[in-house]
Amino acid sequence: MTKSFTGNFFEDFRIGQVLRHATPRTLTGGDVALYNAVFGGRFALASSDAFARSLGLKESPVDELLAFHMVFGKTVADISLNAVANLGYAECRFLKPVHRHETLSAVSEVIGLKENSNRQTGIVYVRTTGLNQDGETVLSYVRWVMVRKRDADAEVKNQSAPRLAAAVSPADLVLVPGIDYGRYDAELAGSPHLWDDYVAGEKIDHVDGMTVEESDHMLATRLFQNTAKVHFNQHVEGQGRFGRRLIYGGHVISLARALSFNGLANAQQVVAINAGRHVNPLFAGNTVYCWSEVLEKAELPGRGDCGALRLRLVATKDRSCADFPDKDDKGTYPADVILDLDYWAVMPRRG
Amino acid sequence: MTKSFTGNFFEDFRIGQVLRHATPRTLTGGDVALYNAVFGGRFALASSDAFARSLGLKESPVDELLAFHMVFGKTVADISLNAVANLGYAECRFLKPVHRHETLSAVSEVIGLKENSNRQTGIVYVRTTGLNQDGETVLSYVRWVMVRKRDADAEVKNQSAPRLAAAVSPADLVLVPGIDYGRYDAELAGSPHLWDDYVAGEKIDHVDGMTVEESDHMLATRLFQNTAKVHFNQHVEGQGRFGRRLIYGGHVISLARALSFNGLANAQQVVAINAGRHVNPLFAGNTVYCWSEVLEKAELPGRGDCGALRLRLVATKDRSCADFPDKDDKGTYPADVILDLDYWAVMPRRG
Amino acid sequence: MTKSFTGNFFEDFRIGQVLRHATPRTLTGGDVALYNAVFGGRFALASSDAFARSLGLKESPVDELLAFHMVFGKTVADISLNAVANLGYAECRFLKPVHRHETLSAVSEVIGLKENSNRQTGIVYVRTTGLNQDGETVLSYVRWVMVRKRDADAEVKNQSAPRLAAAVSPADLVLVPGIDYGRYDAELAGSPHLWDDYVAGEKIDHVDGMTVEESDHMLATRLFQNTAKVHFNQHVEGQGRFGRRLIYGGHVISLARALSFNGLANAQQVVAINAGRHVNPLFAGNTVYCWSEVLEKAELPGRGDCGALRLRLVATKDRSCADFPDKDDKGTYPADVILDLDYWAVMPRRG
Repeated sequence: MTKSFTGNFFEDFRIGQVLRHATPRTLTGGDVALYNAVFGGRFALASSDAFARSLGLKESPVDELLAFHMVFGKTVADISLNAVANLGYAECRFLKPVHRHETLSAVSEVIGLKENSNRQTGIVYVRTTGLNQDGETVLSYVRWVMVRKRDADAEVKNQSAPRLAAAVSPADLVLVPGIDYGRYDAELAGSPHLWDDYVAGEKIDHVDGMTVEESDHMLATRLFQNTAKVHFNQHVEGQGRFGRRLIYGGHVISLARALSFNGLANAQQVVAINAGRHVNPLFAGNTVYCWSEVLEKAELPGRGDCGALRLRLVATKDRSCADFPDKDDKGTYPADVILDLDYWAVMPRRG
Repeated sequence: MTKSFTGNFFEDFRIGQVLRHATPRTLTGGDVALYNAVFGGRFALASSDAFARSLGLKESPVDELLAFHMVFGKTVADISLNAVANLGYAECRFLKPVHRHETLSAVSEVIGLKENSNRQTGIVYVRTTGLNQDGETVLSYVRWVMVRKRDADAEVKNQSAPRLAAAVSPADLVLVPGIDYGRYDAELAGSPHLWDDYVAGEKIDHVDGMTVEESDHMLATRLFQNTAKVHFNQHVEGQGRFGRRLIYGGHVISLARALSFNGLANAQQVVAINAGRHVNPLFAGNTVYCWSEVLEKAELPGRGDCGALRLRLVATKDRSCADFPDKDDKGTYPADVILDLDYWAVMPRRG
Repeated sequence: MTKSFTGNFFEDFRIGQVLRHATPRTLTGGDVALYNAVFGGRFALASSDAFARSLGLKESPVDELLAFHMVFGKTVADISLNAVANLGYAECRFLKPVHRHETLSAVSEVIGLKENSNRQTGIVYVRTTGLNQDGETVLSYVRWVMVRKRDADAEVKNQSAPRLAAAVSPADLVLVPGIDYGRYDAELAGSPHLWDDYVAGEKIDHVDGMTVEESDHMLATRLFQNTAKVHFNQHVEGQGRFGRRLIYGGHVISLARALSFNGLANAQQVVAINAGRHVNPLFAGNTVYCWSEVLEKAELPGRGDCGALRLRLVATKDRSCADFPDKDDKGTYPADVILDLDYWAVMPRRG
């Protein structure tokens, strides 16, 4: 019997099961720099200690999505090594900022199991919690993923799908403790457009495109200690369904978030992800574009300095977003749309 | 009206205009490591805290060119998003060392405007100042760039080109405060050749060549938060004048500086850039070589421990520099020469 | 006479010669992050300060192989710039952990010289010592390398080959000072298999494969300030014996070590390398796999909390290791085997 691990199959999971994931990981300025180098983000709060201090913080918190990917990466070996597809995210909240020199670990609980009718695969729902070195929860999210069965005939008892919220309620959004947008320098942040200026229904073309290379996505995905084979092994994937390596879906989210600076430069914090789907695959050589739609505006209790924007972020490949490519009336996406993400961001208000 | 920004055009600038650029950026050891990984520099002062301490400093200052690129990167969104070509640099001085954990920001003043006779484009001259978190100037330089007009018929008043110094005067060169080359360890630095050993007119082939990949230059250019589209978007550039992404000119400067270690290992500090031109484009797949010429030697006031060398650094692509490829009598460069840079470096002297 | 350096040739060395190498190099979290991004390591001790603290340490020590490559890189300009092949390693011991913000330098002594019968080349044996900023030895190893002669007719006196130990004795293995595996959390580290569970002769397929891109290996090798031309210059190598850049052998070692996590997740420290050979070259585009064999188990004097495993790590390219590809009875390796490494690792024992 070998000591190497080939991952869990659908019938290995049970509802209520708790998985403590390897490997705890200390983030440093090195991780932040690499994240910047790969995605090119320009949001001031995640870029500058001096800017963070001007808002009352001690230092720049680590980009929420970097923390998300680090937590997600840990779950792959236990949850999705035998996954066919990553189906969706929900109820993701960022609960405590992560700083350089803090250590992240992750725990998941299986909250749903649903076998597919062909009995070859089933859907596994997990709620994953990211923890810091003091055991405090820094983020939490649900994802569901289609996982192969080892044995099509295996019986899986106690199946059920969880009820998930359509969106995180604005009352449940958590700001960085101590942050005060009262002396916010919008010019330094890169845009004059504040929370007050956005209206529900408004669409924004983020204009710029970013081409992805094999090295780029593999560097980032390894940085996150994400071990999903499809991202890394051309020797196998060259024989597979796409003939090439598939890019980690989270790579698209971070690229699109970085590109969205052009139009949303003051959306300093991502505080929740309501829903997200990778609707088509991305490959090296493709160029990613994106556009946003303002879904909803919400005041935040007790805060006159900032408000929340619920945003839809849609990314494409090899297609400009000047005409806002979208799903059709039946909910079908064009082949060049790759991401449909629904999230809450916090943005300063006019004084 | 959209909230995304497509950049300023020639007629949007006016002489005297001051632009405060986004995004302030805190540098860490992560930025330094990535810079090393991309360019492969080996100068001891920028590599080692212990070496810096042996020269009386508290720690290793950040490579001057890394600071330069970080400042330059911030200016792109405001100055050169609609640029046809980056034409030159002058009067660049490094005035205060930057250290890890310091934050850089940038301000530019428009100091010249000159429309081209075809009325499609004009030249914009800016003096850019890099500032640290305390508002102190760390570097300053002039660059000029050819920018498209939105409307060829637009009138631009008050045009003039600035007078620029041919070179920074040795009296204006600024050393790292507190540095003492008196106990300099040349063997550890990698070369026995000190300031005393170089003569004006001397040419040095730096021998080694470095091939550039798409990922390499995009990682670095994104690290610098430089958003010039030509470097990143193959979907558009594939249809453009070169059929591929153009590499950031500053990438060539840093590569050539790193390669120049072999022959100039003791040129520990770049203290000024007198002039610089990107005379031909560089693309991924090309191999960069370079050679240097000693233009001038200068003693530094009150310093017996070090002197200044004015150096010309010429870089080529896919061509060895053993025969010192150069412009001809008419000032025309061969197609494989890509950079002609004139700068001041500080080098230790014999005791 | 030029000031650039084209490297030493076989006849430039003499037994007893000591070479102090450039460039001293301070490691930061940036180097650690890049190392993680390139190789994807997941060993808990090298990943997490919190995990290190749970074992009684102050912080996570830098991965031993990162320290090794940093030391090795410094030696290239003096030892192997004119090398034909890197032939082997022996007697490598890791003597003191390296931490972020420490500075590494390197010194080598020539301990053997052996001209080849064709008189075109000779073998140079060096013992290289890696030192920290306080002059303490952090690691030491012997390598031998075939170096070209400048002049085939040159006489080289006092030739001899050193006697090298077949393996480092378990009594000479050095643990990280103060480490206590008594409260080791194997679940968090990623595997239930401890020292007690491995048996001599056991073979482990590490399952996963990792494809290497040009950018990946060049980024890492430049990070290590390794200047061997064959890794970087496609303009020259395109005309050379392989028609392309050759990947640094140490890259394979680090990739295989990272992949070996799947099966050896608790092998937290590499404490010695007994022998190592790069038996075939690796190129960009290849996918690396590996397998391990347990050669020997050793108790460590006075330690009930951990033991040593002597492991053989064999890496392949574009070939799964499910059938443990190996040399044949005559010691000949298949063309797709690229590395055969013999090393000691420390692993926790059951309480």
